Order: sequence, then C-alpha cells, then structure tokens
Amino acid sequence: MKTCAQKQKTFRIAGFIEKITKDLAKSYHDGIGINHNEGDNLPRETEVLSILGKIMELIYPGFGEQIPNSVETLRFSVAETAAALYTEMNELFFRSFRYHCRLTKKCNECECAASAKRTAEKMLSSIAPLREIIKKDVQAAYDGDPAARSLEEIVLSYPGVKAVTIQRIAHVLFEEKLPLIPRIMTEYAHRITAIDIHPGAPIGEGIFIDHGTGVVIGETAVIGSNVKIYQGVTLGAHSFPKDGCGKIIKGAKRHPNIEDGVTIYAGATILGNVTIGANSVVGGNVWLTESIPPGTKIRIADPELTIKKPGEKK
Amino acid sequence: MKTCAQKQKTFRIAGFIEKITKDLAKSYHDGIGINHNEGDNLPRETEVLSILGKIMELIYPGFGEQIPNSVETLRFSVAETAAALYTEMNELFFRSFRYHCRLTKKCNECECAASAKRTAEKMLSSIAPLREIIKKDVQAAYDGDPAARSLEEIVLSYPGVKAVTIQRIAHVLFEEKLPLIPRIMTEYAHRITAIDIHPGAPIGEGIFIDHGTGVVIGETAVIGSNVKIYQGVTLGAHSFPKDGCGKIIKGAKRHPNIEDGVTIYAGATILGNVTIGANSVVGGNVWLTESIPPGTKIRIADPELTIKKPGEKK
Amino acid sequence: MKTCAQKQKTFRIAGFIEKITKDLAKSYHDGIGINHNEGDNLPRETEVLSILGKIMELIYPGFGEQIPNSVETLRFSVAETAAALYTEMNELFFRSFRYHCRLTKKCNECECAASAKRTAEKMLSSIAPLREIIKKDVQAAYDGDPAARSLEEIVLSYPGVKAVTIQRIAHVLFEEKLPLIPRIMTEYAHRITAIDIHPGAPIGEGIFIDHGTGVVIGETAVIGSNVKIYQGVTLGAHSFPKDGCGKIIKGAKRHPNIEDGVTIYAGATILGNVTIGANSVVGGNVWLTESIPPGTKIRIADPELTIKKPGEKK
Repeated sequence: MKTCAQKQKTFRIAGFIEKITKDLAKSYHDGIGINHNEGDNLPRETEVLSILGKIMELIYPGFGEQIPNSVETLRFSVAETAAALYTEMNELFFRSFRYHCRLTKKCNECECAASAKRTAEKMLSSIAPLREIIKKDVQAAYDGDPAARSLEEIVLSYPGVKAVTIQRIAHVLFEEKLPLIPRIMTEYAHRITAIDIHPGAPIGEGIFIDHGTGVVIGETAVIGSNVKIYQGVTLGAHSFPKDGCGKIIKGAKRHPNIEDGVTIYAGATILGNVTIGANSVVGGNVWLTESIPPGTKIRIADPELTIKKPGEKK
Repeated sequence: MKTCAQKQKTFRIAGFIEKITKDLAKSYHDGIGINHNEGDNLPRETEVLSILGKIMELIYPGFGEQIPNSVETLRFSVAETAAALYTEMNELFFRSFRYHCRLTKKCNECECAASAKRTAEKMLSSIAPLREIIKKDVQAAYDGDPAARSLEEIVLSYPGVKAVTIQRIAHVLFEEKLPLIPRIMTEYAHRITAIDIHPGAPIGEGIFIDHGTGVVIGETAVIGSNVKIYQGVTLGAHSFPKDGCGKIIKGAKRHPNIEDGVTIYAGATILGNVTIGANSVVGGNVWLTESIPPGTKIRIADPELTIKKPGEKK
Repeated sequence: MKTCAQKQKTFRIAGFIEKITKDLAKSYHDGIGINHNEGDNLPRETEVLSILGKIMELIYPGFGEQIPNSVETLRFSVAETAAALYTEMNELFFRSFRYHCRLTKKCNECECAASAKRTAEKMLSSIAPLREIIKKDVQAAYDGDPAARSLEEIVLSYPGVKAVTIQRIAHVLFEEKLPLIPRIMTEYAHRITAIDIHPGAPIGEGIFIDHGTGVVIGETAVIGSNVKIYQGVTLGAHSFPKDGCGKIIKGAKRHPNIEDGVTIYAGATILGNVTIGANSVVGGNVWLTESIPPGTKIRIADPELTIKKPGEKK
C-alpha cells in the first residue's frame, strides 16, 4: 500500500536526520532544558512516584497494588516496604541535594549525603503521626458529605483526600529543604485531582476539600484545623513583593491565613496575606482581599440578573 | 561517591526500620484506612479499570487497545470480551457486596453472590441500549461545537463524551446498589477529564458537556435530554438536610432538576432542589438558587467594571 | 466460598453471552463509534503518545524516561530518537490522512503518503526552532512566579509549561491539516493539566500560564508574545456563526485576540472575536465581550458583599 511513499523517500532520510540532529545539538549548547549532569542526574518522575507509592502504601495499607495481608502479618510487609523505601529515598534525595548544591556551590558531597539521610529518616518517622492526622481528614469527609457512604469509599475514591495526603507528605520534605521532589509530588496530585496545593503550605488536621477541581492554595498560605474548602477556591497572592531592582522576591509571605473551623464555598477567591478568622463562613464566588474577624459570615449580595421570560422581547 | 554516606549509616538502619514498623503497626490497630479483610478484599482500582476498559471496548469497538477487526469478524472478539468481562464482574462485584454486607451485617454469602450475578448480567444487557444513547451524545457534540470536524474526532478526544459514557456505565451499577465501584469509576472519569458527575444522577440522551473542566453534578441531580453544559458549571447542594441529632442525612434530595433542551453556559452555579424549566438558557457565571419556568433566559446584568485607560491615574 | 454462586450460574452463561453478542452486533451495524477500516485503522492514543513522547524527549533531553547522556554523546541518542520518530510519524500520519481522505473522497493513496511525509519532515524540522521559543516560556515562568526556585523545577513540574509545549507541537501538525492527531495531543495535555488549548490557536513566545486549572483557549484565538494567563481563564466564543440552514459554520473566527504583554488574572472570561490591546491588564473574574485599547487596566468593581458579624441576626 505504501509503495509510492516508499519510492519517494529512498536515499533522502539519512541526510535529513543528520541535519535535524546537527540543528538540535546546536540548540542544546546552552544547557537549558537539558538533564545531563554526567552521572548525578535530576530525579525522574517515575522514581519520585515509586517513593510516593510506597509511602501511600504505608499510610493506607492494602489500598495500593500490593496484595493486602491480615493485620497480624501486615508488619512483615511493612518492614519490607519501609526498608526498600529508605534505600530509594537515600539515593534519590542525595541526587536532588547534589543538584541544588552544584547550582549554588554551597556544599560538598558529604553534606548532601547527610542531608539525604536526615530527610529520608524524617520522612519515615513522619508516616505514623501523619496517619493520625489523615484519619481525621477521612472522618471530616464522611461527616461533611451527604453522598459519602463509608470511610472505605472515601479512601478509595475521594480526590480531596488524595491531594491532601500527597501534600502532607510533600510538606514534610519541603520543610527539610529537599529540592524539586516536593513540587513534583504536589504537581502529580494536581494532575490526578486538579487540586493544586503548594508543598510549602502547612495544613491543620481534619481538612475536607470537596470535589476540589480548580482549588489553588499558594506557597505561603497557612491553614488551621477542621477547615472545609469546595471546588474552585483560590487562596492566592494579590501582588508580589519586589526587591530594589524590581525583581520578584522568591518565597515572600503573600497568601492568606485560614483559621480553625472556617468554611469556604465553591469559587471563592481570597487574595493576599490576610486572615480569615476562626469559624468564619465565606460564601460561593466571594472575592475577598481583606481580613475578616472570627465568626464572620460573608456572601455575595443577591446578584443582579437579567431575566427574559418566554414571549418577552430581548 | 557515596562512601561518606555509607559510613554514616552502618548498623543503624535495621533498628530504625524496626522502630518505624512498630509505630506503624500500632497506628494500624484501629483498622482505619486499612484493607485487610482476610481473603475477601476491597475492589482494587486496577480491577475496576479492567472491567471499565472492557465495557468501553464493547461500546466503542476498536478505539481501545485491542486491534480492531472488520465488522464481519467483530462478533468473535465481542463474545470473547463479553465472556471475560462477565467473569471479572462476577468476582469483583461479589467482593464489593460482601464488603458492604459485613459492614451492615444484613446479608449472607449466597445473597451477595446472587446480587453480584444479577448486577453483572444487568451491566452486560445494558451495553447495547447504552450505545444507542451514547450515539446521540456524540452527535450532540458534533452539532454543538464549531471546532468538531468528525464523529471519530469526538470519540477519540472529547473529554465530555468520555466522562458521560463512564458515568452512564457507573449509573447502571449504582442503580443496582453495587457499593464502592460506581464511585471509583466516576472518580476515574473525574481524574482524566476534571468533570465530576456523581454516579447517582440520571442523565437523558444527547447531552453535550463542552471543555468540561470543573463541572460538578451532584448525586441527586436529574438531567433531561439534549442538555448543553459548559466548563465550570456546578449543579450543587445549597444546604444539607439534617436529622434530629444535627447529622447530615445521607442521600437526601438536594440537587437541581434540569429539564429537556436546557443550555447552561460556563461558570454558572445552580444550587438546591430547584427546577430549570425546559429549553431555558442560563448564562455564564449566573448564580441561581431558585426554580425558573420553561423557556426562561437568564444572564448576569452587565457587570460593573473599573476601567483605567493608559495615562489615567488610579 | 462461591459454591452457591457457582451452582446458580451453571449452563446459563453461554446462551446469555450469545444473546448479548447478537444485540451488540446489531447495534454496530450503523458503523457509528466503531474503528474497523479493514486494515488502515484510526490512530490509537498509545501510538500518538509514543510520537509525542519522542518529540518531548528531543525538546527536553534527559527529562523523559531515557537515561540522560552527557551533552557530548547526546547527539547519538538524538539521531536514533529522530530516526525512529520519523518512521513512526510517517506510518501514523499516513493512516490519519487516509482516514480523512476516505471520509471526503478527495484524494488518493499517493497524495496521502506525500502529505504524511511532508508533515513528518515539517515536524522534525520544527523541533529546534520550537526549543528556542519554549526556552522563553520557561524563563517567563521563572520570572513570573515567586514560588519558582529554578528552571529545572519548572521543566520537571509546571503544568502550564507542559500544556503549552504540547500545544505548540500540535499546532505545527494542525497547520499541516493533519486530521485527528493534533486534537488527541492537546486533549492529552488537557487531561494531565486541566488546561484546554485547541491546537488551532497560534501562541507567541514567552507565555506563562500559572496553575492553569480550568483554562480554556478556543480554536480561533490568537495570542501574542509575553502574555500571562492565570487559572480559570476562558478565551471563548460568544456566539457561533451559522449558515443559511441554521447549521454552525465549522472553524469560523469566533475567539479573542490577545496582543503582546497582556496579563489576564484568574477566572476572567473574554468572549468573541474581540481584541485585548497590548500590555492591558484584565483583572480576576472580569467578564468581557468587547475590545479594549492597548494599555487598559480593567477590573471588577468592588463587589457588594453581605457581611454578618458574630452575634448579628441574619
């Protein structure tokens, strides 16, 4: 069927590929967008997801791809998973610290290895306490959603619980100043849930993010306990602090503080370093750039609508 | 390269892993977030997706990973797929009914097996009629989108058609009261399309959800035929009916009814058990918590904007 | 455990599967939603993603699943990837042109083969120039986001950069009138980023889409250089031009033109064939259906809110 195509392409391909390769080699010369660190390469997404998968297996045993055991024999598979996880984390975190170290020329290999080890141990030690916090997240979803039929349904299917669990893991690593990997984890959560929470934000226990599509929570947001957030909520920046040269200051505090027990309904936007007082309720589609005291209820005024009944002219 | 790291970690690892394992074992003691039902475990996502993939292959033959046949020989591969699907469904649905049965202590194994069989047969029998409905969905997308060039393009790439097809499958299973699996299916659709339709909502034929990102359709919504919905539309709850103890009543009717021929433009929010009359048009960003009669056109009033032309002061 | 179930199902299955198969075969008769072109089948998503993966590997060498090389040896793997890519593209693009050709009966096999070859060569030749444009996208993300710590972090994790890179690739193929494949690529990007950019829209260099969830950019939008777009922005159609029979005209110009240096904040909606003049700033949640001159700043008026402090009655 492709004989005419085959005739057309004889003898020309090799030269064409050669030219393409030469052009690309020139384009690679500046090193931008290239991963080629002569041995110590950047973390790959598959490696990060392998680590994340093992941590999730330890948090929710039996819900991943491993065959679940009885509680009695669980500890054998836990020890095995934890040991493999420890080795993988040491290796990958080392490369990640090395990358940053070469970029800033501020440390040596032994420091990077020590940082990797410290971070891997911190992560492993954090899993049991994280579980206690996450149990409260799952319970908050059950109590807050009339459609939720069981805790198992929530663990198996709720994207809000998935996104928050991954962010909690990433936040532990972010606090240890591990480069690149925390953000790769939360962007993976963003991809599978459309919930975008920066690993920098500390989040209190018992949070429930329902539906969640379009939620954005910025790097320097601070969220208390028992907070409810619905789809399309943005906790964002209003403006970016700049240095004397007009360059944006990296990491400056610019996102909201949400105190305990606050509910934020779908589509609300809260911008800037403002504080939403405890137990406040922010209504759907509210646009807010100022602080509000505890216990405030705020909602959009009844919107002006243009209604045309059948038979009426425009 | 890692000799210094290796020196640091000698002899300490085993004890560390042991301690981590002990802490986790204690945390697992309450059974929350654990899948360990001594033999009859919860459905795994991979198993649910294998079933969903086979149903999709029967609905859209040749569009999945199977090599397509001619229409003449199609029936052989169909029989093979249907038989494998039947076996998989029986096995997985049984475990799902068993899980719920143990939770509520209301049934025995034979009942669970009979329920699994009934549900599997119902699902298989529903595929041909579902195809007739879904053809109208595909046609509605073609008629409604100026960017659509062919029916094949729609089947191959439109997320709205994918999300609705999966929801229609899940709704068949939801109606049979199959636990867990319908929601796992729609949350899979939510993940790949950012369209979140609860499996409980009945949807008429010829629906077109364009772009779709951020669409949320609640459990007790009811949607008629030939409805058009754009990105960011919420058909949600306004408040949750509670029982005498202040607990949310699970499953109570709380979402909108959308009658035949209604169009709902991007970002509109309709909340509560209200009715949008047939052939009404709800404009972009409208916020609506009341019923409207058939044939109504409703849009936001021209928004008040603050405009600063170049050279003007703030 | 399943003995009672097994008893129930003896002897009935074969007949049931036969009936299901017969019903489905009847439903397939009209050919809708079926891929069965007796040899020359439609492109499969896995094939499209294999091609897309190779192009991405050439754009960002070492960031995909291939083991990265040093810059010195990179050109060997580049030549290998480019050659394999060329072969795959020729084969798949041929089937895609053939499909369209049979649909419209306007061309012959040799023309399809020539079109496939021309398109494959165009794509390969475009990769080096695309890299120069994409470097500016990555730099724009770094300059525009206070949370961005390095260019590598952006390449590894930012969904906006991923969605735009894939759209730029798809746009090259769209311009060559390759059927189906460009849209499959951008819908893949839509799936993993919740950013929906039609392959038809030309986009200038140095674009930054931050967070990105819910962004919709229509087929006939035109976007200049150094544009910033935040989550939830729609560049959509206001109405669809129709022909004399009331049928929507496919592909008619109906989306906005965004000139150089424009910033569009989260949730803004711009509809219709309007022009946003250079360096304008469109505030969050603005709803705009008219053109604005260069340098305009437009934002929603301070919204009317209903605020209830603690202790106040409703």
